Amino acid sequence: MTISRLSKLSKFLTSHPPGSESAGGLDALLLNAGPSLVYLTGMHFHLSERPIIAVFSGEHEPVIFLPELEMLKVSDLPFQLRACPYGEKPDDWGGVLRTAISTLNLNRKRIGVEPRQLRLLEYNLVRACIPEAIFQDGSEVISSLRAQKDGEEISAIRKAVSVAEAALEAAIPLVKTGMTEKELAAELVVQLLRHGSQPEMPFAPIVSSGPNSANPHAVPTERKLRPGDLLVVDWGAAVDGYVSDLTRTFAVGEADAELRKIHQIVLEANEAGRLAGKPGVPCAQVDRAARSVIEKAGYGEYFTHRTGHGIGMEGHETPYLRADNMELLEEGMVYTVEPGIYLPDRNGVRIEDNLVITGDGADCLSDMSRELRIIG
Amino acid sequence: MTISRLSKLSKFLTSHPPGSESAGGLDALLLNAGPSLVYLTGMHFHLSERPIIAVFSGEHEPVIFLPELEMLKVSDLPFQLRACPYGEKPDDWGGVLRTAISTLNLNRKRIGVEPRQLRLLEYNLVRACIPEAIFQDGSEVISSLRAQKDGEEISAIRKAVSVAEAALEAAIPLVKTGMTEKELAAELVVQLLRHGSQPEMPFAPIVSSGPNSANPHAVPTERKLRPGDLLVVDWGAAVDGYVSDLTRTFAVGEADAELRKIHQIVLEANEAGRLAGKPGVPCAQVDRAARSVIEKAGYGEYFTHRTGHGIGMEGHETPYLRADNMELLEEGMVYTVEPGIYLPDRNGVRIEDNLVITGDGADCLSDMSRELRIIG
Repeated sequence: MTISRLSKLSKFLTSHPPGSESAGGLDALLLNAGPSLVYLTGMHFHLSERPIIAVFSGEHEPVIFLPELEMLKVSDLPFQLRACPYGEKPDDWGGVLRTAISTLNLNRKRIGVEPRQLRLLEYNLVRACIPEAIFQDGSEVISSLRAQKDGEEISAIRKAVSVAEAALEAAIPLVKTGMTEKELAAELVVQLLRHGSQPEMPFAPIVSSGPNSANPHAVPTERKLRPGDLLVVDWGAAVDGYVSDLTRTFAVGEADAELRKIHQIVLEANEAGRLAGKPGVPCAQVDRAARSVIEKAGYGEYFTHRTGHGIGMEGHETPYLRADNMELLEEGMVYTVEPGIYLPDRNGVRIEDNLVITGDGADCLSDMSRELRIIG
Repeated sequence: MTISRLSKLSKFLTSHPPGSESAGGLDALLLNAGPSLVYLTGMHFHLSERPIIAVFSGEHEPVIFLPELEMLKVSDLPFQLRACPYGEKPDDWGGVLRTAISTLNLNRKRIGVEPRQLRLLEYNLVRACIPEAIFQDGSEVISSLRAQKDGEEISAIRKAVSVAEAALEAAIPLVKTGMTEKELAAELVVQLLRHGSQPEMPFAPIVSSGPNSANPHAVPTERKLRPGDLLVVDWGAAVDGYVSDLTRTFAVGEADAELRKIHQIVLEANEAGRLAGKPGVPCAQVDRAARSVIEKAGYGEYFTHRTGHGIGMEGHETPYLRADNMELLEEGMVYTVEPGIYLPDRNGVRIEDNLVITGDGADCLSDMSRELRIIG
């Protein structure tokens, strides 16, 4: 798997050299620890105070600069790699890195980096070795590979969706008035693990109730669930390194008429968004489909975020389903559709599903009921 | 709490201006989403594709550049803050940021950043606004504040240690031959949550057995526990935003004589390391104390990493207990002592405790048995 991915990258680099007609011409791609490195090489490293730097070029075997104590991770790889280990003294790192990359002749070359992932820690080390290199955003090169998932990747995401759904179904019977958001979040994590999620999850569940649910990015608090609350649960699982990301909104006891109404509007926006995806459709069109339902109902100003984002090895990745994104959906892309309405200081609603673009449409991977279930 | 921290930072910036005698003179400190921002302001943001940039200077109120959908997080703060929100279109971000920081007159000024935390995403946006500013490593400014924990912080770490110990004690009776490393890791996470850890933990537990335990940074695998294995469990909890980080090594059934021997050596090294810490002692001296036990026993080459690192809001932070680090320990610093011996392709041992520097020594926060317990 990693071999075919490395070979695709290598082909891209040699067929899109700098100065060629195509945008994004690069001599090399530079990665630090993170999902793109896992994708290309299968090597997992924590992002820590010990820098990891990998350089991929079309001509040479990949080079990796890494701590000595991580050397076991590169001892049995299915592809050629030159490993350049360093010891525990930061003063020595520059020299090791200089030797590591000197044979690649990267000075004055164009080097693609991932601005969302690369830190000044790694960037400054590299720049000191090759001060005349030109660093440019190479995110698209690697995200274009990562965005179109293969069968194995889609299957892992399907499993992550099933695990997440089963976990929430197992947690729901335990919900009761007076329970805190934090207690429910912890119980949900337990159920995610019991149902087969990896311990390293895409994100900690959002469990937000009443006025807290009006914050799309709420963090669970000590607030106790009360009758009349809406309860937003935004959660996901990780299976075989791939994630799911779902949201359902519940009513704790009876919800008032306006809350039931906004739930119904979001449900319709979610459906419109789910139906809008197919190959060749711009991301913006999916956003428009969902957003126009909410706008027509008079709540446009309360849908304050984009309609969705890609998922895969990361909880957020390309494609981004935003009003200004004319990127086209392609077969194998997996993304969320998650419209919401947030009434400040009152309550919020969000309904989020995960979809994969097929040959002629989009398959929804999640099928848990989206109706306003009364719990507690 | 955040007010006194902000005021300390502000005092530092005004009393250490650039050009003053002291090293590290700065006009401002620039942070992205992460623990230092939480420390100073109490504001939690995920590190995501949406940049968050906060600027602290001695003279002005702090400024934060953040997504509109995060505005609720800045609505009720105990200190003055100028919030500059941006919408979902990345093309607009540069303009919003320019306006946000223009009044600070930062061009040609010295701006401290955290290279371990700041990404090119944020750095490039800022640099485009103030191309003549000088960015320099300001990690020490903030880490000097964060390294000396106050009573409340130490109390949270104590709780995180207790939760971790109780969770492992609850998981041990479930360990049996034939169980996989992954299964035990998942069970341990469940117990961590049941015992009160936050869902966002410092790191996923390392559960490594037999030859896998010879890799200090192993990731749990499908390998099944076998009689004769050593079993390394490196785990931690998070309570009130502070973490613990412990390691114990077990024997699955009877361990052979050399494995029992290296366990005993590591146990003695751990004790020597624990006893070495007190105010005014260089970090290197703690490393030396632990390392010399292992060297004298003839296993020096198999202790491949530093003796420890600070813990707090992060799993790894200052002080680093490394042979080359002459930084002095100070009251309130909290750190790990974790010597190990790793016999390649055979087995490894690590024993890790958490300590806090007191007025005249170091208190060990963890008291779970360090003996080679036979389990399974």
